[in-house]
Amino acid sequence: MKILVANPNTSTGVTDRLLASGNLVAGPGTELMPMTAPRGVPYIATRAEAAIGSAVLLEMLAEKRGTFDAAIVAAFGDPGLGGARELFDFPVVGMAEAAMLVACTLGRSFSIVSFAKALEPWFAEIVAWHGMSGRCASIRMLDEPFVSINDVQDEKEQKLVDLANRTVSQDGADVVILAGAPLAGLGNRIGDRVPVPLVDGIQAAVAMAEGLVRLNPRKAIAGTYRRPGPKDSTGLSPALAAVIAHKDA
Amino acid sequence: MKILVANPNTSTGVTDRLLASGNLVAGPGTELMPMTAPRGVPYIATRAEAAIGSAVLLEMLAEKRGTFDAAIVAAFGDPGLGGARELFDFPVVGMAEAAMLVACTLGRSFSIVSFAKALEPWFAEIVAWHGMSGRCASIRMLDEPFVSINDVQDEKEQKLVDLANRTVSQDGADVVILAGAPLAGLGNRIGDRVPVPLVDGIQAAVAMAEGLVRLNPRKAIAGTYRRPGPKDSTGLSPALAAVIAHKDA
Amino acid sequence: MKILVANPNTSTGVTDRLLASGNLVAGPGTELMPMTAPRGVPYIATRAEAAIGSAVLLEMLAEKRGTFDAAIVAAFGDPGLGGARELFDFPVVGMAEAAMLVACTLGRSFSIVSFAKALEPWFAEIVAWHGMSGRCASIRMLDEPFVSINDVQDEKEQKLVDLANRTVSQDGADVVILAGAPLAGLGNRIGDRVPVPLVDGIQAAVAMAEGLVRLNPRKAIAGTYRRPGPKDSTGLSPALAAVIAHKDA
Amino acid sequence: MKILVANPNTSTGVTDRLLASGNLVAGPGTELMPMTAPRGVPYIATRAEAAIGSAVLLEMLAEKRGTFDAAIVAAFGDPGLGGARELFDFPVVGMAEAAMLVACTLGRSFSIVSFAKALEPWFAEIVAWHGMSGRCASIRMLDEPFVSINDVQDEKEQKLVDLANRTVSQDGADVVILAGAPLAGLGNRIGDRVPVPLVDGIQAAVAMAEGLVRLNPRKAIAGTYRRPGPKDSTGLSPALAAVIAHKDA
Amino acid sequence: MKILVANPNTSTGVTDRLLASGNLVAGPGTELMPMTAPRGVPYIATRAEAAIGSAVLLEMLAEKRGTFDAAIVAAFGDPGLGGARELFDFPVVGMAEAAMLVACTLGRSFSIVSFAKALEPWFAEIVAWHGMSGRCASIRMLDEPFVSINDVQDEKEQKLVDLANRTVSQDGADVVILAGAPLAGLGNRIGDRVPVPLVDGIQAAVAMAEGLVRLNPRKAIAGTYRRPGPKDSTGLSPALAAVIAHKDA
Amino acid sequence: MKILVANPNTSTGVTDRLLASGNLVAGPGTELMPMTAPRGVPYIATRAEAAIGSAVLLEMLAEKRGTFDAAIVAAFGDPGLGGARELFDFPVVGMAEAAMLVACTLGRSFSIVSFAKALEPWFAEIVAWHGMSGRCASIRMLDEPFVSINDVQDEKEQKLVDLANRTVSQDGADVVILAGAPLAGLGNRIGDRVPVPLVDGIQAAVAMAEGLVRLNPRKAIAGTYRRPGPKDSTGLSPALAAVIAHKDA
Repeated sequence: MKILVANPNTSTGVTDRLLASGNLVAGPGTELMPMTAPRGVPYIATRAEAAIGSAVLLEMLAEKRGTFDAAIVAAFGDPGLGGARELFDFPVVGMAEAAMLVACTLGRSFSIVSFAKALEPWFAEIVAWHGMSGRCASIRMLDEPFVSINDVQDEKEQKLVDLANRTVSQDGADVVILAGAPLAGLGNRIGDRVPVPLVDGIQAAVAMAEGLVRLNPRKAIAGTYRRPGPKDSTGLSPALAAVIAHKDA
Repeated sequence: MKILVANPNTSTGVTDRLLASGNLVAGPGTELMPMTAPRGVPYIATRAEAAIGSAVLLEMLAEKRGTFDAAIVAAFGDPGLGGARELFDFPVVGMAEAAMLVACTLGRSFSIVSFAKALEPWFAEIVAWHGMSGRCASIRMLDEPFVSINDVQDEKEQKLVDLANRTVSQDGADVVILAGAPLAGLGNRIGDRVPVPLVDGIQAAVAMAEGLVRLNPRKAIAGTYRRPGPKDSTGLSPALAAVIAHKDA
Repeated sequence: MKILVANPNTSTGVTDRLLASGNLVAGPGTELMPMTAPRGVPYIATRAEAAIGSAVLLEMLAEKRGTFDAAIVAAFGDPGLGGARELFDFPVVGMAEAAMLVACTLGRSFSIVSFAKALEPWFAEIVAWHGMSGRCASIRMLDEPFVSINDVQDEKEQKLVDLANRTVSQDGADVVILAGAPLAGLGNRIGDRVPVPLVDGIQAAVAMAEGLVRLNPRKAIAGTYRRPGPKDSTGLSPALAAVIAHKDA
Repeated sequence: MKILVANPNTSTGVTDRLLASGNLVAGPGTELMPMTAPRGVPYIATRAEAAIGSAVLLEMLAEKRGTFDAAIVAAFGDPGLGGARELFDFPVVGMAEAAMLVACTLGRSFSIVSFAKALEPWFAEIVAWHGMSGRCASIRMLDEPFVSINDVQDEKEQKLVDLANRTVSQDGADVVILAGAPLAGLGNRIGDRVPVPLVDGIQAAVAMAEGLVRLNPRKAIAGTYRRPGPKDSTGLSPALAAVIAHKDA
Repeated sequence: MKILVANPNTSTGVTDRLLASGNLVAGPGTELMPMTAPRGVPYIATRAEAAIGSAVLLEMLAEKRGTFDAAIVAAFGDPGLGGARELFDFPVVGMAEAAMLVACTLGRSFSIVSFAKALEPWFAEIVAWHGMSGRCASIRMLDEPFVSINDVQDEKEQKLVDLANRTVSQDGADVVILAGAPLAGLGNRIGDRVPVPLVDGIQAAVAMAEGLVRLNPRKAIAGTYRRPGPKDSTGLSPALAAVIAHKDA
Repeated sequence: MKILVANPNTSTGVTDRLLASGNLVAGPGTELMPMTAPRGVPYIATRAEAAIGSAVLLEMLAEKRGTFDAAIVAAFGDPGLGGARELFDFPVVGMAEAAMLVACTLGRSFSIVSFAKALEPWFAEIVAWHGMSGRCASIRMLDEPFVSINDVQDEKEQKLVDLANRTVSQDGADVVILAGAPLAGLGNRIGDRVPVPLVDGIQAAVAMAEGLVRLNPRKAIAGTYRRPGPKDSTGLSPALAAVIAHKDA
C-alpha cells in the first residue's frame, strides 16, 4: 500500500527525517511517499502558523489525491486534519492523533515532550481537540534557542532525555510522546534512557494508517464527516478548488 | 474609535448585513470599517472552509493593520482568531466569542441557532475551543436548502423563530444566539416572538470591541499570546509575510 | 445612561475606590451611581459573609430600582447575582463575571490575584458557578495581615505585583485579574510591571454594563431567569418584599 | 443525641412533615429538634429566595447553638450550608447533600423529582455545587399549580409516582430522590410503585447526621472550612453578629 | 443489626484491625461480623490483585448471604462492589466509597493518604469510578518498604502524619482519608496532629451501612443494579454459581 | 507474528467467530492463536461476570505466556486489561479499547451498538475507564431475548442495522462500533446499510496489536504499569501465582 507523508512544513530536511523514521516500522509492501509543503514556514510552531499550514495541507492532499491509499498529516498539531477528513474519501491520520491513540494502549496517561516553548499552546489545543486532555499528564518543552530545525534532535538529545524523565518522575507520565516532526526517529536512540515507553509520532501514524487501510472503513455519507456539497470559490489552488466544487472526478 | 469588521467570507452582501446590524448598537464616535475576504468561499460552513478562511483572515488583518483600533472576526466560528491574537497588538474579538460571552450575562445556558446543518460541526468546535461547552444547551440548525446567502434570514425568518423557540422549550436555553454572519440583524425583527433574550453576533462583537478599546489592555509579552519571534516564510501574502518576519514596523 | 454600582460591603471607602476606577473607562454620557450596603460586614470574605451579602444586595437593588439602566454587583464574588437576575428586569453584571468574560477575550487562561487568603474558597466557588473553571489557571492570594481595607492596595502593591508575576511564570496565566473591590484601580498603576494584560473588575463591569444597555436584551419570560410568580414573605425589607410580592409597580 | 432540624422555610406545616418523616428512621436515643424560620418565605423555590434563606439559616443556627449535637439544613437546596460549616464547630448536613450521598450507594446515577418547576434551577445549582452533576441523570419537576404547600405531596401523589417512573424508563435513573421538604415522608407510601430505591431527603440527612455525630470529626483549623477570624458587622441578628465577632463563647 | 465486614485480603491481622476500629463507632445493637478472604493475596495493592480480589469478594458474600443485614467491602479500592450490588439484595458499601462520601460532608475536597506507592493507580481508579475525582485534591502515598502489613500503621505513624499534613498545606485538602484496611484505627491516634478532619474507611463504612439498614431501601428491579437473569457457569465456587443461576433461594 | 486471541467467555462458538473476523484483516505473516476461557460464564454481560472474567483472563494469559507476541482481551468490556498490562511484558490490547481508538480516527464521536440490554452498564464503565466518554455519542442495546449466543448476530441482523442507523440520525454518531464478541464479523455484511463507518472490535484489535508489535515499545519500569514486586498468594492458578511471585522465568 502507498501512504502519503504530507509534511506541511517547508523544510525538506524534516521530511527526510520523517521518512527515515517511518520506514523503520512500515510493514512489508508499504511505501511511504514524501511530500513537502510548497509554501508556508520551515516549521509550524504557533496558532497563526498552524492556521496557514492547515490551508496548505488541504492543497497538498488535493494535489496528490488518487495516487495513494492513506495520508498522514505529518506535523504534530495535525493542521487541516478535520477538513481533510471531510473533503476526501481516503483515510487520513494526524501525527499527534496517532501518537496519542497509541500512547493510550501503553499507559494511563502520557506526556508530550518537545524542543521549543512556542509549540506548547498549539499542542495543548490539538490535545483538547482530540478529547485527550484527560489522558495527558503534561506538556513540557525545552525553552532555549537551537541551531537548525533539521538537526535539533541531535543538538538537544540529552536535554530531551532529561525532560522526558522529569515527566515520569514529576508528572506521573506512563508514556512519553516525543512530539514534533523534527524529532522523528529520536525515540529509537534514547529508548533505553527513559523508563517508560516512548512514542514517535510518525511511527505511530504509519502503524495507524496501515491498520486503517486494512480495515477499509467506508466514507461517511452522513454525520459530521460526510463530504460537503459542491461550492464555488475564489483564489484557491486549482486542485483544492476542484475538490471543493466537486470537479475532481 | 475605528473597528474593522473583517468578514472572511467573500460575499459583500453579508458584509453589508453585518455593518447595518452593528451600527444599530455602536456608540457615538465608533466607526465600523467593512472588509470582505478577497479569496475563499462565499460563506464558510465546514471545517475545511474554516481552515482556508483562517489563513485568509490573517492576511486581511495584516493588510489593514495600523488603520483601526480593534478588529472583529466577522464569521461565527471565529476563523483565525487565535493566530490573530498572537500576531497583532490590537484587540481582536470573534463573533462567536462575543455572542457567547454576552449570552453568559443573560442566562445559565444559551443555544445556538442557525440556517444550515453543515455549520454544526464547525460551531460545536468553536464552542469547545472557547471552553463554553458547559454553558451551551444545544446547537440547532435548519436542514433544508435556501435560495441566497444574502437573503437567507428573510426567507427562513419564521422557521428560525420556531427553531429558537424549540431550544427554549425542549433544550432549556435561557438565551438564544442567532449565529452566522448571514443572520446579522435578524434578532431586532423577531425579538418579541421568542421569550428569552436573543444575541446577535455582530452586535455583541461591537459592544465587546468598544469595551476592549476603552479598557486598553496591554499586549502580552509573556504567556501563550505573546508575539512569536520573527520567521521566514515562502509564498504567503506580502503583508502577512512581513508581519511574521517582524518587517511590519 | 445610569449604572448603579451596588457595593454589598459596608465600607464607603471601598465604594469610593470603585467609582474612581470605574470612571476611568466609562464612556461619555455614562453616570456611575454609588451605593454602599446599609448592613453586613465591611468587606465580604467568606462563604458565610457572602450568604449575608447576597440577601443585602437584593434589598439594595429593590430599594433603588427604577432609577438606573443597569446594575453592577460590586464585590468580586458576585453575591446575589443569580437572584437579582431573576427578580429584576434591568441588566445586572457581577464584577467577577465581567472580569472573567473580558479576560477570556485576552488569553487562553486567567489567574485571579487578591489580598487575603480567606477569599479563595468564595472566589473558587464563583468561578465554578460561572462555568469558568476550565479557563482559570490559578487563584493566588496574599496570606498576611493588612492595616486597612480601604488602603490595602497601596500597602501591598509590590507584593501583589510579585504574586501576579508568579501566576504568569508558574501557572501559565495569559491574563491576571486583580480581584476584590478593595483593589479597584490598582491595575492602572502596575500594568507595566506585569507582562500580560491585567483586568480590573469594576472597569470590566462598567464596560460590560454599558454594552448590555446598548444591546438592550429583553427580560426573559421563559427559562430559568424568568421572574418568579408573586409570593408572600415575612420580615424582609419592605422594598424587597414588594418586589417578591409583585407589588412594586 | 440531639439533632436540630432547621427548616429555613417559614411554614410550620412543612416542619411537622420533616419531623414525622425523620423520626421514622432515627435511631434509639436520637432526638430531632424542630425549628422553623422566623422570617423569609413559606417555601424557598428560587435563587433569590435561596439567597435570603441562606442568611436566615445562619441566624437560626447561631440562635440555637450549644443545644444540639448536629444540625440539618432542612430545605433541599441546602441554603447556607457552606457558611454554616465555616462558622460552627458542630456537624451540619444538607438535605440535598445527604440525599445525593445516600443515592450514590444505591446506584450509578440518581434523578431528582419534585413538585414545582421553579425549583429546578436552584436544585441544579446545588447538585453542581456538591460536584454531583456527573451522578445526576435528570431533574424533573411537575409543572402545574398546587393548593397548599403543606399538603402538596398528597394532592400530587400519583403524578409524582408517574414522574419518578419516567426518570427510570427514560433517563436511566438507578435511584430517585424525592426532593423538597414538602415531600418528606412520601417515599414510604409510594416505594412499591417505583422499581428503584427512593431516597427521602430528611431521612437521609438524619442517617448522615447520626453517623457524623458517632464519627466525631474534629473541627478544621486549616483548609477552607476553618473558622474565619473575628469581624465586626452592622445590622445582623445579635446571635449571628456574636458568632461572626467571636463573642459567642 | 448484623454487618458483614468482608475483608478480601487474606491477612487475618488486618481483619482484626478492621473490627477493632469499626467497633469504636458502631451503634448499640450493631454486631460486626468478620470474614477474611480464603484465597488471594495478603493485601491487594495493584490492578491485577484487585481483579482477583473482586471475584473472591463475590464468592465471600455468596457464601455468607442470609446471615447479615448489610455488607462492607473491607478493602479501600472496593473490589467487587459493583457486581455485589447487582447480585445481592442486601445493602453493600465499599470502604473507599464510604470514606469519600463522609469526607464530602466535611470539606470541599479530600486527599487520600496511604502507605505504599503501588496502591495509587488502583485508588485513583476507584475515585474515578465513584465520580469523585472532582472532590479529590490529591492521592499521596509513602514510597518505602515496611516490615509487616499487620503493623505498618504503627511503624509508619509519624511519616503518615507528615504526609497528611502535606496534603493540607500543599494540595489544599479540607479532609484527609487514611486509606487502606491496614490503616484502620490510625485516625483515632493521630487526629490531634493533623489540622483537618480525618476519615477512617471502616468507621465511615460502618456509619453508612448502619444508616442504609435503617433507611431500608428496596432492591432495584429496574436500572443498572437490578439483578441479572439466571445464567449457567463453569468452575465457579458453588455458592456463587448458585447465586448466578438463581438457585440460591 | 503470533497474536493470542484470549476469549474470557466460555463459549467456543464465539471464539470461532472472533478468529474468522480477525483473519479478514490480519496482515501476511500474522497468526491469530485462539483461546477460550476454561471457567466462567458463556458470555460476560454484567459487572459481576466481568469481575469473574477479569480474574480468569489473567489466568489465561499467565498460562500461555511465552508463546505469542501480543495478546487481545477478546471481550468488549476489556476484562482484566489493566491488570494484564501490569503483570506482563508483551503488548495487550482490549477489544473495546481498540474499537474506540480506531473510531476516533474516523469521526468526532462514536456510538456503541450491541445485542443485550444487560451489557450497557459494563460497556459504559469501560468507556469511562478509557477516558473516552467525551467521544461517545451513545450506547444503544437491543432489549429482547435471543436464541443462541453463537448465532445472535444472524438472528438480529436487521434489528442491529436499524439500531445503528438510529444512533446516526438521532445521536449524531459519526462512527458505529458493533460491540461484543458475539457480533464479530457482522460489520462486513451490513456495512453498506449504515451511512457511516462501522468498527468491528476484533478487527480493530488485530490492527492495533499488529501495530504495537511493530512499534515494539519497551516494558515500563516506572509509572503505573511497571511490574509489581513479587508477592505470595493463596489458592490461585499455578501459572498466575507463579507470575505474581516472579517465579515465572
